[in-house]
Amino acid sequence: MLQIGFDVGGSNIAVGVVDDDMRIVARRSAPFPTGEPYSHTVGIMAGFVRALAKECGVDARAFQSIGIAVPGNISSDEASVVHAYNLQFHHVPLRAAMQSHFPSVPVYLGNDADVAAVAELYAGAFKGRQTAVLITLGTGIGGGLIVGGRMFKGGRKNGVELGHMVLAHNGPMCTCGTRGCVEALCTATWLTRQGRISVIEYPKAMISTKAGGDMNRVSARLVIDCAKAGDAIAGDIFARYVDQLGSALASVANLIDPEVIALGGGVSLAGEFLFAPLRENTLMKCFFDTCGDIVPAQMGNDAGIIGAAMLQRQSG
Amino acid sequence: MLQIGFDVGGSNIAVGVVDDDMRIVARRSAPFPTGEPYSHTVGIMAGFVRALAKECGVDARAFQSIGIAVPGNISSDEASVVHAYNLQFHHVPLRAAMQSHFPSVPVYLGNDADVAAVAELYAGAFKGRQTAVLITLGTGIGGGLIVGGRMFKGGRKNGVELGHMVLAHNGPMCTCGTRGCVEALCTATWLTRQGRISVIEYPKAMISTKAGGDMNRVSARLVIDCAKAGDAIAGDIFARYVDQLGSALASVANLIDPEVIALGGGVSLAGEFLFAPLRENTLMKCFFDTCGDIVPAQMGNDAGIIGAAMLQRQSG
Repeated sequence: MLQIGFDVGGSNIAVGVVDDDMRIVARRSAPFPTGEPYSHTVGIMAGFVRALAKECGVDARAFQSIGIAVPGNISSDEASVVHAYNLQFHHVPLRAAMQSHFPSVPVYLGNDADVAAVAELYAGAFKGRQTAVLITLGTGIGGGLIVGGRMFKGGRKNGVELGHMVLAHNGPMCTCGTRGCVEALCTATWLTRQGRISVIEYPKAMISTKAGGDMNRVSARLVIDCAKAGDAIAGDIFARYVDQLGSALASVANLIDPEVIALGGGVSLAGEFLFAPLRENTLMKCFFDTCGDIVPAQMGNDAGIIGAAMLQRQSG
Repeated sequence: MLQIGFDVGGSNIAVGVVDDDMRIVARRSAPFPTGEPYSHTVGIMAGFVRALAKECGVDARAFQSIGIAVPGNISSDEASVVHAYNLQFHHVPLRAAMQSHFPSVPVYLGNDADVAAVAELYAGAFKGRQTAVLITLGTGIGGGLIVGGRMFKGGRKNGVELGHMVLAHNGPMCTCGTRGCVEALCTATWLTRQGRISVIEYPKAMISTKAGGDMNRVSARLVIDCAKAGDAIAGDIFARYVDQLGSALASVANLIDPEVIALGGGVSLAGEFLFAPLRENTLMKCFFDTCGDIVPAQMGNDAGIIGAAMLQRQSG
C-alpha cells in the first residue's frame, strides 16, 4: 500500500510516496508559494499527488491516504489549520480543500512536531515504545508526545507545547511573553545569543576569533565547535546549556516517566558531546532511580513526510 | 456491589465499604502500628474486612474487591510496595499478603496520589473528564494524572512525580536533592518558611504579632489568614506563592493541556482567595487561548478510601 505524506513548511513543500516499509519511493518538492491564497498552495499539492501517481504507475485514487504536516495548530475536529504563522494560514479548511481534488482518498492533518513523533514511532527511535517524547532543538523548541502508543494531542486537543513549560520561574523572557520557558533557555537561539555576548565580553577568546570579531557570524554551531575544541568560554556556555536542558528533560521524565526521550534539530547534531553529559545531568535530577533512554531522533528531514503518511494509522 | 477501600497512612489506617453510588456505607480506622512487621498490619486490615462484612450482613467473600492506597511507589507488576517510607514498608508483597486472608477477593494496590485522582474521576472533580491533573498542596506535593479516562502510572510505571518538575532552574534546594522543584516552591512548607522568616525581618507585622513573635507558631494557615486580613507582608508572600504555583500549573497545562486541574491539600482550603488569582496567573502563562478548569478537589479525606475501592475498575 502507498501513502502520501506532505511536509508543508514556510520555505518549502516536500511530499513523498511512502510504502509499507516506511520507504519514500518517490518524492517532490517546491518552494512554498508565500503570499498566495491557500487554494493556490493546495493546487500545487494536488498536482504533486497526480505527478507522483503517474511516476508510481498508479491512479491517484489508489493512494491509501494523504497526510499533511503543517507548522501550526490543527482544529479539534482535525479539519482545519487554525494558525500556521509561517504559512500565513489562519482558519484554513485544508482537509476539505485537498479532499475536493481526491474525493475518494482520506485526508489527514497534523501538527509538524506531533507528526515527527509519529514518524519516530513507526520507523525511528520510538519503534515498539508506548510512551515517548520527541524534542527538537532548533530556533525554537518543538515537542511531540506518544502516550499509550499513540500521538497525544493534548487533553483538549490544543496540542503539546513542551517548549513553554516553565523552567526558570522569573527567568529570561520567552517570545511567548512568559518568563523562563524551556524555549527561552534550551534552543540553538540561546547558544547563539550567549556566543554573541561572549564576543563582547571576551574579544580574544576562540568564539570571537573564529567569528572575526563579528557578532553576526556567531552561530550555535560555532559555539559547539569551539566547546568541542576545548575553549573554556564556549565550554562554559555549553555546560550551562546542558544543565538547562537537563532540567527540562528531568521535568518531563518526572511527570511522564517516558521510556525514551529523543532529541532532534540542529543542536542534537552535536552528538555524544551533548548526549553523554546530558544523560548524566538528567539522571541526577530525575526523581526515579533511572530515567528512560535519551537518544538522537532518527528520522531527520524525512520525519514530516513519513509521519504525515502514517497519520491514517493513528486515526480512529 | 460492595468494594473495600483502604487508605493506609503513616499515622492512620482508614477503611470503608463503598457502594455503587460511591457512598461509604461502613468504615473503620485505627492508628498505624509503627515498628511492627508488615504481617501485623495486614492482620489488622484483614480483621477490619471481616468486621465490616459482619456490619454489612454479608460474607467477606461477597466483597467485589479490596483496594489499598499507600503513600509510596508500587512495583510495576502492581503486587508489592517498593518503598513507603512513612510506613517503613520496603519491598513488601502486600497484595499476596492480603490475598492470603481472602483468596477469592481480588486485591489491588495503588499509590495514594494516583488513587486520589481515581476518586475524583469516579465521584468528584474529574467526573466525565478524560484528561485531568490532581495536585495536593500539603507538606509536600502530591500529583495524580488521568489520561484517556484512566489513571496514568508513568510510561515505565514509576509513577507521576509532578512535585519534582523543575520550576526554578538553579532555585532553592528541594528535599530530593535537585534545585527548584515544584515541591520546593509550592507547598504549605514554603508558606510556613516564608512566614517564619518574616517574623525575623518584620517583627512588628501581623504574622509576627499573631504568632507572639514565636517563629515556631507560624503556619501556612496563619500566613494565609494574615494575607486575607489585608496584611502587606503576608500578602506579598501569598502573591509570590500564587505566582510560583501559577508557573507550575502553566507547565502542566502547556504539556498535557488537561481539561481540569484540581487542587487539594491544606493550602487549597484558602478557597477563592487562592483560586481566583491563581486562574488569572496560570492563564497569563498558558500558551493556549484558554487553559482548562482550575478547581478545588472534591473528595477530601475520603479520597483514599473511595479511590482504592475503585481500583478494580481501573484494572485490566
